[in-house]
Amino acid sequence: MSEQKKTNIILFSGDYDKAMAAYIIANGAAAYDHKVTIFHTFWGLNALRKDEPIHVKKNWLEKMFGKMMPRGPEKMGLSNMNFAGIGPKLIKKVMKKHNAMPLGDLIDMAEEQDINLVACTMTMDLLGLNKTELRDSSQYAGVAAYLADAEDGGVNLFI
Amino acid sequence: MSEQKKTNIILFSGDYDKAMAAYIIANGAAAYDHKVTIFHTFWGLNALRKDEPIHVKKNWLEKMFGKMMPRGPEKMGLSNMNFAGIGPKLIKKVMKKHNAMPLGDLIDMAEEQDINLVACTMTMDLLGLNKTELRDSSQYAGVAAYLADAEDGGVNLFI
Amino acid sequence: MSEQKKTNIILFSGDYDKAMAAYIIANGAAAYDHKVTIFHTFWGLNALRKDEPIHVKKNWLEKMFGKMMPRGPEKMGLSNMNFAGIGPKLIKKVMKKHNAMPLGDLIDMAEEQDINLVACTMTMDLLGLNKTELRDSSQYAGVAAYLADAEDGGVNLFI
Repeated sequence: MSEQKKTNIILFSGDYDKAMAAYIIANGAAAYDHKVTIFHTFWGLNALRKDEPIHVKKNWLEKMFGKMMPRGPEKMGLSNMNFAGIGPKLIKKVMKKHNAMPLGDLIDMAEEQDINLVACTMTMDLLGLNKTELRDSSQYAGVAAYLADAEDGGVNLFI
Repeated sequence: MSEQKKTNIILFSGDYDKAMAAYIIANGAAAYDHKVTIFHTFWGLNALRKDEPIHVKKNWLEKMFGKMMPRGPEKMGLSNMNFAGIGPKLIKKVMKKHNAMPLGDLIDMAEEQDINLVACTMTMDLLGLNKTELRDSSQYAGVAAYLADAEDGGVNLFI
Repeated sequence: MSEQKKTNIILFSGDYDKAMAAYIIANGAAAYDHKVTIFHTFWGLNALRKDEPIHVKKNWLEKMFGKMMPRGPEKMGLSNMNFAGIGPKLIKKVMKKHNAMPLGDLIDMAEEQDINLVACTMTMDLLGLNKTELRDSSQYAGVAAYLADAEDGGVNLFI
């Protein structure tokens, strides 16, 4: 009866706008006292990356992935109307005008609301990402942990 | 026991084929007596746009977004094999041959089946879209309303 | 009480990485005794295609679609960092290094775990795909069957 509602979002996408949607829903759900988890996998891991380069020993392929993938939310592109990087600048300009929170702030807010920010360990391996490169508040888990959270329904989304 | 099933779809994408998938599922669920809501956010709002230009006072950035984003379903592109706009023409040709409903008709049907066509007010602001530019049957809400509909589970999809 | 949990995934995307995510979740859920169904629609049908050309009578438009769409998992591209086809090769190289299963093996495993691999008959028609071109273990159904599986909640994802 009084069971806590759950919102479990898989963030697969590395697009700024999709990540914004994920974090807006997550923050909203946390405000309504849901137990909220964002499970970052594949390109979604970029949202958890710190924005400075971290020195980690990597092979050339991992180094290349590390360089080509955006370091943190501010460097992510749009899923639509990206226009070689101009789109995100325009969107951020409009967001500022409307006092909408940029993605970085939405992630900070999620952290403050105790939303579980989980990084998928399997895809971290694939993309050559190291724990030291991700936000300190990140948790680490695999698909089994995701399923344990999500299997009872509630709001389950793949973004 | 006899509780009405719910289908809540977030339509984030502005692609013709993804919007088709959303509306086919929604219309199917309505036929099975689900309470169905499509929550249009970001590029998904384009599916609700009227196809003629509506004169609204906008700043230059909003005007630009307004011009570059497709006005209504018939101008949307494909997520795959778009080929600079030829893909949608080919798909529509095949759809006609197979008597499949084009997206515009699927949206009309959704309206007739009393599916809630909700426009996300926050992203309308961001993209500079005005209520007069969207279908008259559109409803207006934010993430809180979405969560209230979706939190009890059922079919929740992010498209 | 002891009702079997359900995982129902709509695989809409024809991207290698998104299909990997779908099959990893599906195989995980099957390992936890969920009843699992992957409903392949639109470009997701390509994951079920056999890799050799199958001779079927088609009109020119169907032939064109058939030729341009990837035949089976090994020919699918990435949603991100595809780099004109080099991206998938790099990812597969890294996967091999980390002993991660390639998509083809994940699909075989799904078959062995009795995951229902369903092909959406409506979009097969649209894309001109014939049953003989798809995996022999494929099942065939439409949106009504999907909804019957998904309506009781559990893990419902659109990928």
